[in-house]
Amino acid sequence: MPVTIIGLDADDTLWHNESIFRSAQKRFYDLLSPYGDADAIEARLAEVEHRNLGTYGYGAKGFTLSMLETALDVSRGDVSSSAVGEILATGREMMKHPVEPLPGVREALEVLAERARLVLITKGDLFHQEAKLAASGLGDFFSGVEIVSDKSAATYHRVFRRHGSDPREAVMAGNSVRSDILPALEAGSYAALIPYPLVWAHEAADAPAGHPRFRELESLTQLPVWIGGLP
Amino acid sequence: MPVTIIGLDADDTLWHNESIFRSAQKRFYDLLSPYGDADAIEARLAEVEHRNLGTYGYGAKGFTLSMLETALDVSRGDVSSSAVGEILATGREMMKHPVEPLPGVREALEVLAERARLVLITKGDLFHQEAKLAASGLGDFFSGVEIVSDKSAATYHRVFRRHGSDPREAVMAGNSVRSDILPALEAGSYAALIPYPLVWAHEAADAPAGHPRFRELESLTQLPVWIGGLP
Repeated sequence: MPVTIIGLDADDTLWHNESIFRSAQKRFYDLLSPYGDADAIEARLAEVEHRNLGTYGYGAKGFTLSMLETALDVSRGDVSSSAVGEILATGREMMKHPVEPLPGVREALEVLAERARLVLITKGDLFHQEAKLAASGLGDFFSGVEIVSDKSAATYHRVFRRHGSDPREAVMAGNSVRSDILPALEAGSYAALIPYPLVWAHEAADAPAGHPRFRELESLTQLPVWIGGLP
Repeated sequence: MPVTIIGLDADDTLWHNESIFRSAQKRFYDLLSPYGDADAIEARLAEVEHRNLGTYGYGAKGFTLSMLETALDVSRGDVSSSAVGEILATGREMMKHPVEPLPGVREALEVLAERARLVLITKGDLFHQEAKLAASGLGDFFSGVEIVSDKSAATYHRVFRRHGSDPREAVMAGNSVRSDILPALEAGSYAALIPYPLVWAHEAADAPAGHPRFRELESLTQLPVWIGGLP
């Protein structure tokens, strides 16, 4: 059965966990605070991004355009010029302060994206994770982003199904045994543990070492070869 | 002497000459007509794009962001929400109605962009030509766009110099003997004629067939090989 979809954890799998995007996020919610609370605005941003995905993709420029459209939406056309200018500036900052992918990640995603659909599967909030994906320059490799409240077997089952794949044709890769590995295996998928940082590798508790669909890798760069050798 | 820069004509060299972008252009100038005439707004758009080039590049999303910034600039922050919405819609239309590159052009540019800087050199107006470059999906291959009022030897000399190259290290490729070939040769550059449409190939008047720096090609796809064989 071919691998048709690859789920990837975000923080500490694709990049170091950066905090600089909290300020962009706060700025955006503050600008729009007259029109709704942060949760409501985040939900609207998610709708706008979803609608624009086929046109804009997941890059920083598209993210900026979706922020602008969200601002028009939630304000019902009442957004100020200065807010528009602030959002443009937020987008430019995102592009100028890139999130650095971990070594080898870009090269690995290039290969993986030719082989299967890539979906970012991560906890946390949409704005923050999508802003980081946009700023990482890795957005174009992904066909989907799933922000989930927890990572259970049911979550992986639902996400892989939603993207048109049987969970048995899916690989999940991440740095957490508890969140990325065990529930993905329970859903019937393959799972690749990429410990972070490297020194933790031998301390990774409870890694299901003998499981036929599990593999521990030193880096994402080893993932294409492992997937290539799957039955 | 290595080729360090390649100038490319736009209409009928990279794509068929499309007219659908006239409407986007008119819409943009109409929206901003309270703040200046079309020429003044075009000049401001050129400044904004130049300033953002390193951040946005020449794609459709960056073009849209630059239109928005221009609108804020020329209106001194007085632009209406509905105008912002119209500009976002103009950008999305641009992305949804792409300009189709001529056969083989994308593949050729991919190879050429790894070898030298690519500069679009074209007559016409900035908005229209940059909008088409953005909508063609070819924008990321280019490091510069030069909209020129005429194509003389002095023009090519100045453009290639401005981008840091000796004109003798430059190649100009286009479909017009008069505009793209003869003046580029006079500037000391190489010149490749790519007649359009193909049936005109044998009617191309005055092509300087014996010139050591000239070559007539059937398609842009032949350009990398010719350049590769230059002394």
